[in-house]
Amino acid sequence: MRMVDIIIKKRDGHALSKEEIHFFIKGYVDGSIPDYQVSALLMAILDHDMNMEEIVTLTDEMLHSGDVMDLSAIKGHKVDKHSTGGVGDKTSLVLGPLVASRGAKLAKMSGRGLGHTGGTLDKMESIPGMRISVSNEHFIRQVNEIGIAIVGQTGLLVPADKKLYALRDVTGTVESLPLIASSIMSKKLASGSDSILLDVKFGKGAFMKTLDDARKLARTMVSIGNNLGRDTRAILTDMDQPLGHAVGNALEVKEAIDTLKGHGPKDLVELCLEAGAIMLEQAGVYNNHDEAINALKESLENGDAFNKLKEMIEWQGGDVSYIEHPEKFPLAKHIVEVKADKAGYVRRIDALMIGESAMRLGAGRAKIEDTIDMSAGIVLNKKIGDKVKKDETLCYVHTNIDEFDDILKDIKEAFIVDENEVKVPPIIHEYIK
Amino acid sequence: MRMVDIIIKKRDGHALSKEEIHFFIKGYVDGSIPDYQVSALLMAILDHDMNMEEIVTLTDEMLHSGDVMDLSAIKGHKVDKHSTGGVGDKTSLVLGPLVASRGAKLAKMSGRGLGHTGGTLDKMESIPGMRISVSNEHFIRQVNEIGIAIVGQTGLLVPADKKLYALRDVTGTVESLPLIASSIMSKKLASGSDSILLDVKFGKGAFMKTLDDARKLARTMVSIGNNLGRDTRAILTDMDQPLGHAVGNALEVKEAIDTLKGHGPKDLVELCLEAGAIMLEQAGVYNNHDEAINALKESLENGDAFNKLKEMIEWQGGDVSYIEHPEKFPLAKHIVEVKADKAGYVRRIDALMIGESAMRLGAGRAKIEDTIDMSAGIVLNKKIGDKVKKDETLCYVHTNIDEFDDILKDIKEAFIVDENEVKVPPIIHEYIK
Repeated sequence: MRMVDIIIKKRDGHALSKEEIHFFIKGYVDGSIPDYQVSALLMAILDHDMNMEEIVTLTDEMLHSGDVMDLSAIKGHKVDKHSTGGVGDKTSLVLGPLVASRGAKLAKMSGRGLGHTGGTLDKMESIPGMRISVSNEHFIRQVNEIGIAIVGQTGLLVPADKKLYALRDVTGTVESLPLIASSIMSKKLASGSDSILLDVKFGKGAFMKTLDDARKLARTMVSIGNNLGRDTRAILTDMDQPLGHAVGNALEVKEAIDTLKGHGPKDLVELCLEAGAIMLEQAGVYNNHDEAINALKESLENGDAFNKLKEMIEWQGGDVSYIEHPEKFPLAKHIVEVKADKAGYVRRIDALMIGESAMRLGAGRAKIEDTIDMSAGIVLNKKIGDKVKKDETLCYVHTNIDEFDDILKDIKEAFIVDENEVKVPPIIHEYIK
Repeated sequence: MRMVDIIIKKRDGHALSKEEIHFFIKGYVDGSIPDYQVSALLMAILDHDMNMEEIVTLTDEMLHSGDVMDLSAIKGHKVDKHSTGGVGDKTSLVLGPLVASRGAKLAKMSGRGLGHTGGTLDKMESIPGMRISVSNEHFIRQVNEIGIAIVGQTGLLVPADKKLYALRDVTGTVESLPLIASSIMSKKLASGSDSILLDVKFGKGAFMKTLDDARKLARTMVSIGNNLGRDTRAILTDMDQPLGHAVGNALEVKEAIDTLKGHGPKDLVELCLEAGAIMLEQAGVYNNHDEAINALKESLENGDAFNKLKEMIEWQGGDVSYIEHPEKFPLAKHIVEVKADKAGYVRRIDALMIGESAMRLGAGRAKIEDTIDMSAGIVLNKKIGDKVKKDETLCYVHTNIDEFDDILKDIKEAFIVDENEVKVPPIIHEYIK
């Protein structure tokens, strides 16, 4: 078998066989197939697509290109959820403790933030002492004991994706549905949970800009997961405006704490309850959606979910006093209000611009080697649909940098206020299973 | 400027600017742009094509990626011709002396054979002593003195094409019209002649399988040449069956000698007269086509063309006694007849199969490092349209290898004989200028 023939086959619009996909992934990982042949194939895949059988095979080959987590030592049903990334997306920090408080097991590997989207690991590290790298034994014992652990990915999962992703990034081949779907799903499947809930975001601040594109990606990933023997479902959620109010690491942790104490913003609470109910159904804890929702609401009210967060932080070495007294989180040197020029209703809050502005304020990374200012970020005072008076505060800007007039200008421009009443968009648009 | 943005632009179907094409070619040649980005761009070009402006720019940038031959020291109009490659294509060896005998200057750089097609340099080297590598001074003096030189390409012309061609070969990106056309034309233009005649072959034994594809390629190359200031024309010629009778190096040289002595096969003579007349018109030697044809016929009859071949061979160190006494060329150990199974008319002679069989008999290279047996090859005794009796000889097989039954079988299968009379196809189908 020759790689050039595989490239030509795809270039001519034909489907690749299982053997060809195996040859390509194995050869790329072991170094016998060079980057320049793989990039040509990736471009041909981008142009000529793959059918579902090819995508499933590709995912399966990538998944088995390295280690696969064995979570069999964890008793009970292991659930996992994955978000395609957004602005202000602290969902894992709320949803994890919530579902764990009701008996599902969450043995989760998360990622770091890059560009305008944040990452759960960075947010967790705003808590002093918090370790996101633990031994495999500790990881399994922790989930068996308290039902939840959120850690960084070990280095040996899906090496094919690491190589492919780095290559796609510099060869204009990121935006291919089969490549996106297989990349996400190979990592999720290699993480070893029994079921997966995908939170596929769409809109200004998401990777997928339209509901249509998000739906296509979600359906493809759900098919991959189910074809490879895992109960996989997806929700399509709005990312036109940031999720909740807080954008930025410590600021988001504080909002997660508030939410687990029962005082969360409406969209975040709704997302966590709906997603949590689906995960509890996947875990077989509840068969009835409303029952699951009510149970989760109870966990918020009686403190079970909040206590679960504290347990997790304790097990991973974090200082729990920060969770009990969030006022301990250091505040940024500057906290500045952005005010409305005129009265009206908030029609839009550009999530991409808010995310990028937060990054520039110090809350995120433009490049992988950048460091993060945990206290920096933006806290929205108004969301889409809210009524505002002239000079009322739209949001608070937190930063330790001293010159940020340009950023303030962009943040202000992210808000569009006009006279007409605005209907609040739903957070969850579709449920795919 | 970033290469990834150039890839994305082409991938999204947009035309590249002059600056972007310059950046890509310059960066690839100087090593600042890696193979894996270039192969992705090549695949995007294959899929999304280039407009004429892009193709002209690409050719121009490739042409200037290395040395450009300066032939200004040669007095008179320098003509060049290029064949896209075929089986039995000894045209240069006949056409060169022909047009030189009538006052056009031919300062030609030729190539070697690979796969089923032969190369002029290999054929010339079947003449003992013949040098295809001469100094630049010698090259220019020779053309000034006798009007003709055919030599190998110097190493410094169009390095961009060398790198690109090697990459295309292993990344499934050979079959792209803009890439094929710019590759051929950048080399021809860098060779420095004033006008170019392209012999674009189509059919079984050619790179372009159909007249339509050949026409597209020819029109593109003619546009490139004329846009870059050279009088460029093209003829579309038949390569369904081999050209002339002989296929194989010394065998083809002998046929070229016969042709220059006025005893050539009909198709080869016709091609050389027509192409030669066009080249003499390009050179401004004649303005009337029939006049040019008649002058060339006279050169064949009075020995001028034959003498020009001898002069060239003498100037390049070859043993002219072989030209005067072609029986001196050593014959292969085995000369075997392939006979007709039945009487009828020759309907087809598969040029690809003949070319590949000749290669396997020792006449060509499967890989660039293979050596060639100058005496090996195939001599057709019948061409398309010829009447054959049962057991009459279709062709003679010359070889020094001892086991060639499989090859004989293939050669026999290349001939299709049936009862119906067959119209002889014309050799030149179209003339594009």
